[in-house]
Order: sequence, then structure tokens, then C-alpha cells
Amino acid sequence: MAAPPEAPEAEAAAMRHAIALAARGLGRTSPNPVVGCVVLDAAGHPVGEGWHQRAGGPHAEIHALTRAGERARGGTAVVTLEPCNHTGRTGPCAQALIAAGIRRVRYAVPDPDPAARGGAATLRAAGITAEPGPYAEEAAAGNAAWLTSVRLGRPHVHWKYAATLDGRIAAADGSSRWITSAEARADVHRLRAEADAVLVGSGTARADDPHLAVRGVPGARQPLRVVLDTEGTALTPGARVLDDAAPTLVAVAEDRPATAAGAARTLRLPRAAGGRGLAVPALLTALHERGIRSVLLEGGPTLAGAFAAAGALDRVTGYLAPALLGAGPAALGDAGITTIAQALRLRITAADRIGPDLRITAVPVTAPMPATAAKES
Amino acid sequence: MAAPPEAPEAEAAAMRHAIALAARGLGRTSPNPVVGCVVLDAAGHPVGEGWHQRAGGPHAEIHALTRAGERARGGTAVVTLEPCNHTGRTGPCAQALIAAGIRRVRYAVPDPDPAARGGAATLRAAGITAEPGPYAEEAAAGNAAWLTSVRLGRPHVHWKYAATLDGRIAAADGSSRWITSAEARADVHRLRAEADAVLVGSGTARADDPHLAVRGVPGARQPLRVVLDTEGTALTPGARVLDDAAPTLVAVAEDRPATAAGAARTLRLPRAAGGRGLAVPALLTALHERGIRSVLLEGGPTLAGAFAAAGALDRVTGYLAPALLGAGPAALGDAGITTIAQALRLRITAADRIGPDLRITAVPVTAPMPATAAKES
Repeated sequence: MAAPPEAPEAEAAAMRHAIALAARGLGRTSPNPVVGCVVLDAAGHPVGEGWHQRAGGPHAEIHALTRAGERARGGTAVVTLEPCNHTGRTGPCAQALIAAGIRRVRYAVPDPDPAARGGAATLRAAGITAEPGPYAEEAAAGNAAWLTSVRLGRPHVHWKYAATLDGRIAAADGSSRWITSAEARADVHRLRAEADAVLVGSGTARADDPHLAVRGVPGARQPLRVVLDTEGTALTPGARVLDDAAPTLVAVAEDRPATAAGAARTLRLPRAAGGRGLAVPALLTALHERGIRSVLLEGGPTLAGAFAAAGALDRVTGYLAPALLGAGPAALGDAGITTIAQALRLRITAADRIGPDLRITAVPVTAPMPATAAKES
Repeated sequence: MAAPPEAPEAEAAAMRHAIALAARGLGRTSPNPVVGCVVLDAAGHPVGEGWHQRAGGPHAEIHALTRAGERARGGTAVVTLEPCNHTGRTGPCAQALIAAGIRRVRYAVPDPDPAARGGAATLRAAGITAEPGPYAEEAAAGNAAWLTSVRLGRPHVHWKYAATLDGRIAAADGSSRWITSAEARADVHRLRAEADAVLVGSGTARADDPHLAVRGVPGARQPLRVVLDTEGTALTPGARVLDDAAPTLVAVAEDRPATAAGAARTLRLPRAAGGRGLAVPALLTALHERGIRSVLLEGGPTLAGAFAAAGALDRVTGYLAPALLGAGPAALGDAGITTIAQALRLRITAADRIGPDLRITAVPVTAPMPATAAKES
């Protein structure tokens, strides 16, 4: 990240740090965004920092102002998101910045939330310079889940798969333990910890009896475990995903009877218009209504294909193992794409070695679909 | 590459440079190895360098000694491969080093060729210190094609494929132009230029009418174009691969009549014992006998699967495009692998961004098979 020319170096450095601070809140702040803040004194020296640590707790600005104390007076607040203007469970940050004597505010990303925006205008009305930038793109990427949920009215969907170099997720006989390394599997627990919900389909539930809780990530909040079990037959009462390590929700077709999960943990949804499975948009809307802002999709190729067809893949992380199989199921199943011009085009944002494996992260280059407009598959 | 502690820094730096010099000869020296050489004077300063530029031309040591002239006397020759001991089309390098007054020789890799080895012993008999290393692994990797051919009696096989992130080489309807970027396609021409032969199967020949010559690589030697056309029916007289841009060989089953390529360009081979296609070991032996030391396998999934089954994949380069298809043929076809424990395990040696795509290079972790012992598929 080279500092944009218009940003004084101290503010640029502070914003880079604020973005890193914000990331510490990933997986803990929903339905709120992640936010980081650095307060500089009148001479441009950092005197306080903070990040939003959990929903209901103080916002990043309040943490940073508290640390800065009187040194904030006449200084600059550098924050990854436009300070809020509303009184929710905590007071509006715009007022707190005014009260602390801040003279200047830099915010990377304007707040798109109708309930909270207007903070910059409030600051300006109080005589404070409030300017967007720098590092808007980086800050937006760090807050992708929350921004997606505000803009589209559905959770951000992050699809994770593990495959061989030739794209197989299992051998011809279905065996797949272990394609990727222990390091890659541990990294998946980090992705789970950053998500509000972890999602699998009935095929994965039946074949792998997955647990889906987070292990080995200190201080992690457990995500909601969601199993898409259209016919209500994939889970038996002893399924590992039904234990009390984390909350669980089993989504079934609305015409099916109760499941092994019990009524309280069963979500009834319409079937997909096209045929197999449940309606992806209805699922995403239901999860959004429950406060879920980010979903880690760990399902098999069929489920991933349904999400791709619905325009509901917002980020892809592939763990590629250096192995070849030559046969066996592919990572992504039918997504309604029949010719090369229809390919779902992405942009690779990172490629990192994870133990012996390669982790590739990519985001679509086409605009994602809101839940209401998404094609059913 | 950190310098090994036992290597004086000047020699280590010289060897790193010699390895880079050797690589300039890739694709031009067969059936000889690529070799680089740096001559240091008695004070350890580089005074001459060279690389083996083409078969029949002077060896790397001769180039470097010629440049160094009298300054070589009392100095050190740093060379990527043990100096040769035989008189082929050029004189033995061991004698040339002795005659030039060299006092010390460092060679990264011992010569495994029965016809040429013994250079170090000859040097020592003349009172010269001759020591293996440093950077043996790096130098061997740079000479992988030639070392493979000497050790196994068959060409080194480098399989290249281009696929989407989900491992598809084409869409469901067979369309595939263009999965990867112009940058990736240009990089393939570099791989072709480094190979003695480029190989495709009848499926690729029929579907794509490929040209297979090198374009856009200044000074490149054109590789031998080889089409595996078992039934002799994939190529028509107007096929692009039959033009005069590069030599061409069409391999057909020994029971088939002449092909569109004409008798002089037709190679008759036994069929694979297992069924489909030609016997991979017989093909590799025939190519080796024609002086081919390295093959770039550009064939489709069926051909790549046959080579994988024969234990004849020595390096894999995958160009992964940031796109998803969800349907369409996979990069690698049946390789006789049915369960995960039989997976062909590799080690990733490099992962680089090529334009918007990702280039992954990997080598098998298990020992490759010589032509004579390879399973037929």
C-alpha cells in the first residue's frame, strides 16, 4: 500500500494501522462492521488507538479517544469507517469526537448504512474537517462482509474448498482424508472464526459427519453451524454438528416434517424454483434476518454450484494440494454455465503457501447479486 | 539461496551466476546438458564466464577460459556440472582446465553420464583441487531435463495445462478460448522454447488444430512437434502442425497405414498394453533415441493421464485462471488412481502471478520411472 500523495504521511500510516486494528474484530462484531481508529495529537503523533471488539461494546473511536484522553484535543482521528451518527447500544461517535476536541477526521469508507450515516455531516456542522480516504479500497476489503450485507441485504458468502492441482476434492472412490495438509486445515478454522455462520449441504453432512465448530483459534466466537438438509434426512440424532459446541440450524424444505435437530433448530425454506435443493435467496434472507452478516460456505460441489448460479459467491478461497488424482468429483458442480463466455470471472487477491499447499483467494469481477434479485437455481 | 558456510563467498556468488548462465542454454543444447562456468583469478575476482550455447559448440569452460586468458592461471573454475573427461565433438574440458593453469575447480553436480564422467578424477591426478558443490540442488534443478534423460534413458516430461480455479480446461460445450490470459499464453511459448519436443494427443490435434511452434521468443530453436495420433486419423493434410515452421513427427500405431504427415514424418509404435493409445514407454524411448532430452506435454486430459499412469510426469506447470465453470472436462484424465492413498503427490516449487493468472510449478515427490520400467497404461 503506497501512501496516496494527498495524505499526510502520519495520517496514511495511522490508517494502515487502523485497518490492521479493525481486522482483529473479524467474526466478533456482527451485526456491526469491524472498525479501527487511531487518534493523532495536534503534532501528528499517535496518542490512542482502538477497534470495535464486539457488538454492544464501545466503538473503535471511543476506545481510541479514551486512551488519548486530553491529548486528543486539537488532534486528528483516523478511522476506517465514517463515524456513526446514531445512538444505538452506544452513543454516536460523531458527538464523542466533537466533545473530545478533535479538529480533523479522516475516514476511509463512507457509511452506507441508512440508520447510521451522516456522521461526517454532523462533524462538519461542528466545524471539524471530515475527509474521506486514504486507503478506501483496503479498508473496504477488510470490511467486505459487513458492506456486502448492508448493500445487498444478505450475508457475505465466502466459499472455501480444498482440492488437488487437477481440481478434485476426493478420489474416484470418494476418499478424501487428507487432501490438504494439517496447516491448511488449521487455516480453515481461522476462516470459520471470522464468519458468523458455517454452511454445508446434505451431501457433506452425510459423507463426512462434520463438526464445523472452531478449534485451535484462541478467543474465537463459535459461528452458527448451518446444514442445508432439504429432505430433512441427512442428519441423525447423533450427528456431530448437533452437539453443544456451537449453535446449529438445520434448513429443510417447508413441506418436510421436523428434523433430528428439533423444532427450535429447524429453519423451513421454500425449495429452489429450478429443482434440487432449497432457494438460496430465501436462505440468505433468513440468515440475514437472524443477524448473520458473513457465511463460510464449506459445502460440497452441488451446494457451491447452487450459490454460484445464484450470484452469491463473494469471495473464494481454494486450498490447492500438490497432488494429482485424474478422477473424482470436482470442487464446483453445475452452476448453470455451459460455455466459456459465461464463466464466472474472478480476480486473484492473494496466493500464499500454507505448509505444502497453496491458498488462493479471489473475488468476482462482476457485481454480486442482492438476495431479492438473485436468480434461483 | 543462502551461501553454504563451507563455500567461500566469491565461489558461492560465482556458482549462483554460473547457474543463471547455464539456464540461457535451455532448449538449445540437447543432447548435451546446460552448463555455466565462471573463472576466478588467483585473488578470487571473476575474469571470465561462459555457457554451453549449442550442441557441437564449445563447452562452458572453454568459453570462460578463453575470456579469462592468462588471468586464469592459478585461479578457480566454478562450473555447474563436473567438467567432461571425454573427447566428443569438442575436446575434454578437464584437459583444457589443466592446460590453462587452473588450481582449483568447484562443480555443483557430478556428471552421471558414463561416457563423460571422470573429469574430477583427471583434474585431481593433475594436482588440481576438485570439489563438488555448492548449490548442487539448484544446479540439478536447472539441468533437470538432461539429468533425467541420463539417469532414466528417456526424455524429461514437463506437463503443462491451463485450467480454471475449479480445474476445468474447457466449458461444458467444449469452448475454451481463452481460459488463461495473453500473458500466460506467451509464457507457454517460453516453455516450448526450452523443450526439445512439444507433444499433443489426437484429441487436442482434432479439437484445436494447434500449431505448436514457438512464437515471440527471440532466438528460440523450434522444438520437434509430436502428435500422438494412434489411429492416424486426427491430422488432415492441411493441419497447421504439418507446416514447415518446425519439424514434426506423427506417432501412430504400428498396425496403421501411412498418415497425412508422410512416411518420413511418421513414427510407428506399439499400442498401450492396457488398451487405449500408444505405449508411453515406447514413445519415450523412440524420442530419446532421436536425441530428444525434454518434452513439453501439452496434450489434453487423456494423454496427460496416460503419462501420469506411466510414472512419466517429471514436472507440472499449471496456469490457473481466476474463473469458475462448474462443468467441463478436468485437466487430468484417468491415471489409474482410484483412492486417495494412490494420489500422485508433488511438491510445489514455485507459484507466480502471470498477468491475472497464477502459474504453479510442481515436481513429484516420488521417484520417476525409467522408460523400460514404466507401467503401460
